[in-house]
Amino acid sequence: MKLREQAQTIIDRALEAAQPKTAVQKALSDWNLAPFKNLYIVAVGKAAWSMGEAALGAIDRPIKGGVVITKHDHSMGDLSPLQVYEAGHPVPDQDTLTATQAALKLVEGLTEKDAVLFLVSGGGSALFEDSVVALDELQSITKQMLAKGMNIVEMNTIRKRLSRVKGGRFAEKCAPAKVFSIVLSDIIGDPLDMIASGPAYPDQSTSEDALSYVQKYGLELSHEAQEALKVETPKTLSNVETKITGSVRELCQSAIAAAQELGYETIFLTDRLDCVAREAGAFLGAIAQSRQDTEKPLAFIAGGETIVHLKGKGMGGRNQELALSGAKYLSECKNTCLFSLGSDGTDGPTAAAGGYVDENTLSKLEKAGISYEAVLDNNDAYNGLKAVDGLIMTGPTGTNVNDVTVLLINR
Amino acid sequence: MKLREQAQTIIDRALEAAQPKTAVQKALSDWNLAPFKNLYIVAVGKAAWSMGEAALGAIDRPIKGGVVITKHDHSMGDLSPLQVYEAGHPVPDQDTLTATQAALKLVEGLTEKDAVLFLVSGGGSALFEDSVVALDELQSITKQMLAKGMNIVEMNTIRKRLSRVKGGRFAEKCAPAKVFSIVLSDIIGDPLDMIASGPAYPDQSTSEDALSYVQKYGLELSHEAQEALKVETPKTLSNVETKITGSVRELCQSAIAAAQELGYETIFLTDRLDCVAREAGAFLGAIAQSRQDTEKPLAFIAGGETIVHLKGKGMGGRNQELALSGAKYLSECKNTCLFSLGSDGTDGPTAAAGGYVDENTLSKLEKAGISYEAVLDNNDAYNGLKAVDGLIMTGPTGTNVNDVTVLLINR
Repeated sequence: MKLREQAQTIIDRALEAAQPKTAVQKALSDWNLAPFKNLYIVAVGKAAWSMGEAALGAIDRPIKGGVVITKHDHSMGDLSPLQVYEAGHPVPDQDTLTATQAALKLVEGLTEKDAVLFLVSGGGSALFEDSVVALDELQSITKQMLAKGMNIVEMNTIRKRLSRVKGGRFAEKCAPAKVFSIVLSDIIGDPLDMIASGPAYPDQSTSEDALSYVQKYGLELSHEAQEALKVETPKTLSNVETKITGSVRELCQSAIAAAQELGYETIFLTDRLDCVAREAGAFLGAIAQSRQDTEKPLAFIAGGETIVHLKGKGMGGRNQELALSGAKYLSECKNTCLFSLGSDGTDGPTAAAGGYVDENTLSKLEKAGISYEAVLDNNDAYNGLKAVDGLIMTGPTGTNVNDVTVLLINR
Repeated sequence: MKLREQAQTIIDRALEAAQPKTAVQKALSDWNLAPFKNLYIVAVGKAAWSMGEAALGAIDRPIKGGVVITKHDHSMGDLSPLQVYEAGHPVPDQDTLTATQAALKLVEGLTEKDAVLFLVSGGGSALFEDSVVALDELQSITKQMLAKGMNIVEMNTIRKRLSRVKGGRFAEKCAPAKVFSIVLSDIIGDPLDMIASGPAYPDQSTSEDALSYVQKYGLELSHEAQEALKVETPKTLSNVETKITGSVRELCQSAIAAAQELGYETIFLTDRLDCVAREAGAFLGAIAQSRQDTEKPLAFIAGGETIVHLKGKGMGGRNQELALSGAKYLSECKNTCLFSLGSDGTDGPTAAAGGYVDENTLSKLEKAGISYEAVLDNNDAYNGLKAVDGLIMTGPTGTNVNDVTVLLINR
């Protein structure tokens, strides 16, 4: 099999494992829900519809009721007996509050004989909300935080305290019912209290943190909001079991399994890569050069989410830039390829999921009359790779668990 | 043994293997010099004195004669029967020409019964020269090339053609005598035609290349020099055997051997690392975080020479910056350390060889009232590491074969 075909095999396997359906089924197979008389489903996040559908398909017993809340235009149809809602993202809207009320009503007055299957994915912070402050102030604060460039950790520390469902508070409302939470992670390192602002996870952030961010970024808050920030979130939750699934680690593990089946010895480097994309490509390229004397086919696997410092005006994404920056190094190699892609199928503002390069990429660019350095400096990896058949096209994949990068040294 | 002590053990072993003495002895043990009636030694480069001394110590028979040419103030005493010369570096001077004439006289009229042990180290391009053009023009061209920011490959392509000893021409002059060449590499990837401009190695660069660089950089050359650039260098040499030794690969291999003796499973990444120091630290830090679940103690080894984009006005070097940038990641780890050092014992314009960080570095900095981010942004790794006992101090080591970086995950 050609290198490019091997790469495609690995890509297909990794993306399949990262599908919400695969992830939910895998998590459910580990739990015994039989002792519970009534089973409810609450799904929130951008993948809520897919996760809800997967749960319905995987659970072979009646569901007492359920609420699915996803982003506007993200519903793919009826999921009876689950009620499907669409709401605002990244800024919560009136639909967010209406849908969340439906979920809260569903879990009101539950007993120890009841269980709530809580399906969480990225975007849940905006889509699942019972706000302590008025909606217009919540929207104003969210917009302020986005405008000030606050990071996700800082924003969620604020949001949790302005909310009656975030920071573990939703799980409190479900008690004494048991909550089985399946989390599709979209944040590196899988911080469970951060994904969707952790409605069913003990909160590690503190009121002190929240107040310090208000000061640091000069946020303008009403007295009511200021007071809400002072109320602590639950630090322990006895009625919750959580499984992270479909995370970037599983994306990497599936890539590893696929590479092994193709005969590669595999070296897992990291699933938390967050350095500059071009430098990650240079590092992996240097590994490729130094490990050319390997007797066995060798695969290095990394996952995470690299960053791009935009300087040029070209088109590209972090995965395409990472791959292309490795091409210079690979031009001195044999039977070696490097590819990187985003699991959601879109890399930057492009139609490509990522990029693929091998030892011929540099000479192909040269033949096409394209300056390698100029393309990189102009952040134009998309057009560079497009000219040498180096784009990875998958279309939307239905999942979003960061990126995976693979270096293959075949013999 | 504590992590820091294990790090020191690995550092000591790696530096020992990179010593010119170890390197020369190892290379000589593979060759049979017995069939040759007369043995001569020519040593050129910044490590010429140490290499000459090592050869005298390792060869148990009379040496017919020899010439050692090193940088001004780099001789460490008499090496009879070898004549020791000092000369100009990085710009060749009259002493360069005088010393080189002595070497050429030594190898004049040799026969097939003679052998020349040719010991090459970094700096040889300036220190070993019989110029086609007058010295003042040679100096002017060298200064022009340095001022225009030409890289080492480009500069040597020009220098080889302005010289009667570079680009394989010295080996031609020794013929029919056999040349045994030991090269202490200081260029990543060990390009033998580039180190010291390859006096005993077939030249891969062309006259066409040389002329294109003249145009690219607008070098001002005399007619004589222009004509010299058109004369091709030898592309094959039948009388030469070459060994690269004391290279960054050996530095890495010794680090690997030392780590294995300490019980670590080792993963060799690369000996050609050339990306941005901070990003290399981030990449290795991400590896540390993701491999915390290892059952066996795990060591990742990388070698090369990273780069620093100076923005601040602090004190530091690439190795210190690499290590310090990993500290943020290691703060979430256990029994994990990252260290990086230059094999010459000096990292940037500091007295330190490199830096060491572990999971406690970040909290130590905090306790010392030092802002981690500010130190990194100010390129002030030296002062940051100094405050937390994170400097690696070796003093001058007597060798120079790039850097080695090690990540240890102990259990």
